[in-house]
Amino acid sequence: MKIILIGAGGTIGSAVARELEQRHEVIRVGRNSGDLQADISDSASIRRLFEQTGRFDALVCAAGNVVFAPLDELDEQGFALGLNDKLMGQVNLLLIGREFINDGGSFTFTTGVTSHDPIRTGTSASLVNGAIDAFVRAAAIELPRGLRVNAISPTVLLEAMPDYAPYFRGFKPVPAADVALAYAKSVEGLQTGQTYHVG
Amino acid sequence: MKIILIGAGGTIGSAVARELEQRHEVIRVGRNSGDLQADISDSASIRRLFEQTGRFDALVCAAGNVVFAPLDELDEQGFALGLNDKLMGQVNLLLIGREFINDGGSFTFTTGVTSHDPIRTGTSASLVNGAIDAFVRAAAIELPRGLRVNAISPTVLLEAMPDYAPYFRGFKPVPAADVALAYAKSVEGLQTGQTYHVG
Ligand SMILES: NC(=O)c1ccc[n+]([C@@H]2O[C@H](COP(=O)([O-])OP(=O)(O)OC[C@H]3O[C@@H](n4cnc5c(N)ncnc54)[C@H](OP(=O)(O)O)[C@@H]3O)[C@@H](O)[C@H]2O)c1
Ligand SMILES: NC(=O)c1ccc[n+]([C@@H]2O[C@H](COP(=O)([O-])OP(=O)(O)OC[C@H]3O[C@@H](n4cnc5c(N)ncnc54)[C@H](OP(=O)(O)O)[C@@H]3O)[C@@H](O)[C@H]2O)c1
Repeated sequence: MKIILIGAGGTIGSAVARELEQRHEVIRVGRNSGDLQADISDSASIRRLFEQTGRFDALVCAAGNVVFAPLDELDEQGFALGLNDKLMGQVNLLLIGREFINDGGSFTFTTGVTSHDPIRTGTSASLVNGAIDAFVRAAAIELPRGLRVNAISPTVLLEAMPDYAPYFRGFKPVPAADVALAYAKSVEGLQTGQTYHVG
Repeated sequence: MKIILIGAGGTIGSAVARELEQRHEVIRVGRNSGDLQADISDSASIRRLFEQTGRFDALVCAAGNVVFAPLDELDEQGFALGLNDKLMGQVNLLLIGREFINDGGSFTFTTGVTSHDPIRTGTSASLVNGAIDAFVRAAAIELPRGLRVNAISPTVLLEAMPDYAPYFRGFKPVPAADVALAYAKSVEGLQTGQTYHVG
């Protein structure tokens, strides 16, 4: 398969690349790194990306930013970043990508444990992740041409603990390689409308 | 209690008003109707509303618009309406309303069954409802001063079936009066971070 992997240089994305490159052609995309550059928060940038890649069989997004801040300090603008970037960035990858994806292709997005297991400073992350989980469930039943869409919901990664440990006390971290398996299940399996929880 | 009820003239809101007015002072708010007018999609309008109401004990929102359209016809703009209105409208009611709410007060928002039981033309509704469910779970654990926040997730209402039946075949509709009970449970009980499913 020809697979576009957004966020290929990241903690999750680099493990996904290692897993998928064993069997597939992977086009690595980052905001600044990778074979091609794109910013998912900008729909014109998404369209330029697909014009460069041409048709493809699967898209995986392991990128997406939200603001982490105490609820007390969050205002409308704090939520706007997550809505434009991690949420609508991934929604737009499907809305625009569907013009370029081959029959039977799949979209695999990244959500996270905070949709149902909230943490301090995580209100925007929770909101965005809950939206993605529900979007995937709904979009799956209306997609034409055998297209599929799933989301991966990792708990905190072992590799991210140096930065994230204080926010995830009591969470059992999961190795990136285990998370990468869920992306392979989504891309190479046949399920759709699922959120795979890892950890 | 002094309760602000947004959407008091609607199918759900009018039943909530009937339930709560038996025991409380209810300020009825609508976009065009009610004791006071406000548009939740406009944060300046929300602030003007609270400047008129002064301090209060509970806010209930039974309003919020999203676009219903086949996924094929939905683009970024189609999703923007639901993000600005039903989603960020309700989030902003909390972000701004927290400046005006008394200690121990509560916010009760409206989500819906499509977060987990998707329907044709409902992708934006699902996304928004999933976001609200997760927001409520997360915001609850960070709210100060004994403040609470819950959401009510009704299935399709019996009173709405003349309009909505074709989209909800096989769903068992619930009377508005039963849905109104869940709002009373949220306002007059002590739970927080909950989504009450009705139907
Ligand atoms: N790490 C965790 O423990 C964890 C757990 C659960 C969920 N998640 C979620 O998983 C996703 C990835 O997390 P991560 O920790 O792997 O991230 P990361 O290590 O910071 O890597 C992010 C990757 O995405 C790219 N990127 C960032 N913003 C982008 C944008 N707007 N458009 C296109 N590419 C962009 C970056 O490209 P450049 O390097 O070229 O800038 C980089 O390759 C996030 O949404 C995060 O919320 C992470
Ligand atoms: N009806 C159902 O079967 C059902 C099921 C599950 C969930 N829901 C959800 O429940 C909510 C209310 O539904 P409903 O059927 O009761 O609605 P409705 O009958 O159309 O009534 C809507 C009410 O909200 C007010 N309103 C609309 N947009 C507003 C805005 N931007 N700012 C402030 N007020 C606004 C309206 O005021 P004016 O009349 O003054 O314009 C009206 O009072 C919606 O979010 C809907 O998705 C409904």
